[in-house]
Amino acid sequence: MTKLRGNLLYGQSGGPTSVINASAYGVISEARKHHPYIEDVICMRHGIQGALNEDFIFMSKQDEQQIELLKHTPGSAFGSVRHKLKNFKEDDSDYIRLLYIFKKYNIRYFLYNGGNDSMDTCDKIASYMSQIDYDINIIGVPKTIDNDLPMTDHTPGYGSAAKFIANTMMEISYDMLAYPNGKVTIVEIMGRHAGWLTAAAAIANLSGFGPDLIYLPEVPFDINKFKEDVKKVYMMKKQCLIAVSEGIQNEDGIFVSSSSGLKDAFGHFQLGGVSSKLANIVSTDLGIPSRSVEFGSTQRAASHIQSHTDVTEAIEVGKRAVLAVLEGKSDLMVTIHRVSSNPYKVEYQLHPLKACANVEKQVPIEMINETLNGVNEKFLEYVLPLIQGENPPMYKDGIQQFTKLK
Amino acid sequence: MTKLRGNLLYGQSGGPTSVINASAYGVISEARKHHPYIEDVICMRHGIQGALNEDFIFMSKQDEQQIELLKHTPGSAFGSVRHKLKNFKEDDSDYIRLLYIFKKYNIRYFLYNGGNDSMDTCDKIASYMSQIDYDINIIGVPKTIDNDLPMTDHTPGYGSAAKFIANTMMEISYDMLAYPNGKVTIVEIMGRHAGWLTAAAAIANLSGFGPDLIYLPEVPFDINKFKEDVKKVYMMKKQCLIAVSEGIQNEDGIFVSSSSGLKDAFGHFQLGGVSSKLANIVSTDLGIPSRSVEFGSTQRAASHIQSHTDVTEAIEVGKRAVLAVLEGKSDLMVTIHRVSSNPYKVEYQLHPLKACANVEKQVPIEMINETLNGVNEKFLEYVLPLIQGENPPMYKDGIQQFTKLK
Repeated sequence: MTKLRGNLLYGQSGGPTSVINASAYGVISEARKHHPYIEDVICMRHGIQGALNEDFIFMSKQDEQQIELLKHTPGSAFGSVRHKLKNFKEDDSDYIRLLYIFKKYNIRYFLYNGGNDSMDTCDKIASYMSQIDYDINIIGVPKTIDNDLPMTDHTPGYGSAAKFIANTMMEISYDMLAYPNGKVTIVEIMGRHAGWLTAAAAIANLSGFGPDLIYLPEVPFDINKFKEDVKKVYMMKKQCLIAVSEGIQNEDGIFVSSSSGLKDAFGHFQLGGVSSKLANIVSTDLGIPSRSVEFGSTQRAASHIQSHTDVTEAIEVGKRAVLAVLEGKSDLMVTIHRVSSNPYKVEYQLHPLKACANVEKQVPIEMINETLNGVNEKFLEYVLPLIQGENPPMYKDGIQQFTKLK
Repeated sequence: MTKLRGNLLYGQSGGPTSVINASAYGVISEARKHHPYIEDVICMRHGIQGALNEDFIFMSKQDEQQIELLKHTPGSAFGSVRHKLKNFKEDDSDYIRLLYIFKKYNIRYFLYNGGNDSMDTCDKIASYMSQIDYDINIIGVPKTIDNDLPMTDHTPGYGSAAKFIANTMMEISYDMLAYPNGKVTIVEIMGRHAGWLTAAAAIANLSGFGPDLIYLPEVPFDINKFKEDVKKVYMMKKQCLIAVSEGIQNEDGIFVSSSSGLKDAFGHFQLGGVSSKLANIVSTDLGIPSRSVEFGSTQRAASHIQSHTDVTEAIEVGKRAVLAVLEGKSDLMVTIHRVSSNPYKVEYQLHPLKACANVEKQVPIEMINETLNGVNEKFLEYVLPLIQGENPPMYKDGIQQFTKLK
């Protein structure tokens, strides 16, 4: 195999995580070691949309310190997108445009950092370029706080979000103990179809302070059982802390929330408002004072409390993706394979993009407790290694420093 | 003056902060140096209610490590209360009971850690005990995230909450940059009548990523001006980040929120829901996609991101209160007097409880910007020293450790 010589195009897509930029750091730092095979890392602004619009950021033009700060910067430093590529057999206009751009900038390596939908994009581009015989290696770099990608033990981004949620739930729980007669507090946690993040609230209980009840989208939500659960806890403790996924659905698969009826570009319902809905029900039907908490984007952006394990792995999947394209690999996603939980040990592998795209991995039933309102030891054994260690922010004058790119 | 010999009774009252327990640490560690004048520190469970119910926690019986952890534990480790003592001239039953308890446990020193309402409680007890000639020294220890106590430059608890808010606003702001066509994001921040906490969102802008608009309860809220402000920002930036106080009121003094109409034991309206109300207005009236974020109790409980300055001062006010009672001082509150902002230097003083009780210090007009939708340099000069430095949590296996008392 003769190594290709050209530029590496990198992009971010889908919802940000607090460590997706650490993967960018991994890509950039590894790519630099392979000059001149990789001449420059060119980043698309707003993912594939940036490629189509020729809207690029050149890493060779950036200050070293700004590249370093990527390890501490949340959000998508290069911009994200939710643009779905059409099937090229139906409409190849986007692909023809991409091919033109790839040739113009001599793009021979293409890395796309995202979740299920992004892997779909990545796969479609790989298939097209392969079909028209344009020589390019394409690899997917996994990320998502939702942890719902298949083929990989877990996804970078999940560990840090889980750590934020666990620690914040502890704080809310300890705060609630202040008053002898408390309230029912319902915390709404992200995760459309997979309850991994909501389940992470359970970690808080290891400290002695955490949620009493946890409702995942994997379990059909029964409002009467919910009321019974809450009553039981409240009668005993005079307070109740609940973690609930934004994506809980009744047994007919209808979201408890989604009153807005709005769908995003991928046809997913936009969710939110579950916790306030349930808090109203608790107040009205049970006559118990209640309140709702919505962390919103904080849970995916909390760069001030990252998991060191997660940051390290996020960097590593970026590096592995670069090594893979240089080895001539293509149409694959980097995956994390867990060798053991205790001691925690992982290996990095590659799996076909098709197997990773458009599939949502849910929390398996064997990790859910018998009363279907919490998780069990199996889940804790799975999740604990992912939140270990800290990656302290680079504070300056009391606030974090984030990457500023030219 | 002959030093009294007896026990010191300590209690916490009102809403918790992430550093009120650091003040407890200050009290306990200083008191121990003055044995046998202070025999033991006895803590009331749930403030004054614990004293009335003889529900106590004895510090001499606690493990050293649990006392140390107070510096990292949010909430009220000894429990809080919102119990309003009646005027003893109208009903002295609570006071007679307190006197009985004070005598029974030989309480000669009484420290109460709280905000305006707690200083009122403290003052009433001091007046009563003085009137009936029971020999006891009573000092108030300030705390409140709201920063609304008079006579003191600022209150312990505010700096850490401000640091959490500033850093989280940065994260939300950077996260919003991910998409080219963003939303209007409205973050609701605590503070019933004083906008100190909401104003702290402005610190985020020093990083280049922060709120575009800030609405404080000090400025009468005009919904039409709000809509104009939002339209202007959104037209320019295609997104808009807003920090809004839960306590904003229209020019007639009616809360924008408070649909529930419920009042707490002190006759204050229970607030909440402003951000979702405003988000609805933005979506409906302006046709701009919007969402609301409510941190809830996280902003007062975020022990994972404390300000070192704040923790240090919280400990110090506790120590100073002990020294004050030993010097025979009574019916006073420890205050922080700022000598200079740059370099930051403070002195500790004492002020009459009566002057500190039931008065709410608001953000002065000279710290608010000309367009009444933000703050200015004067506020930043005031607030910046208070968020400096970190007090990293004592993580164990990825989660914080909090005090567990016997």
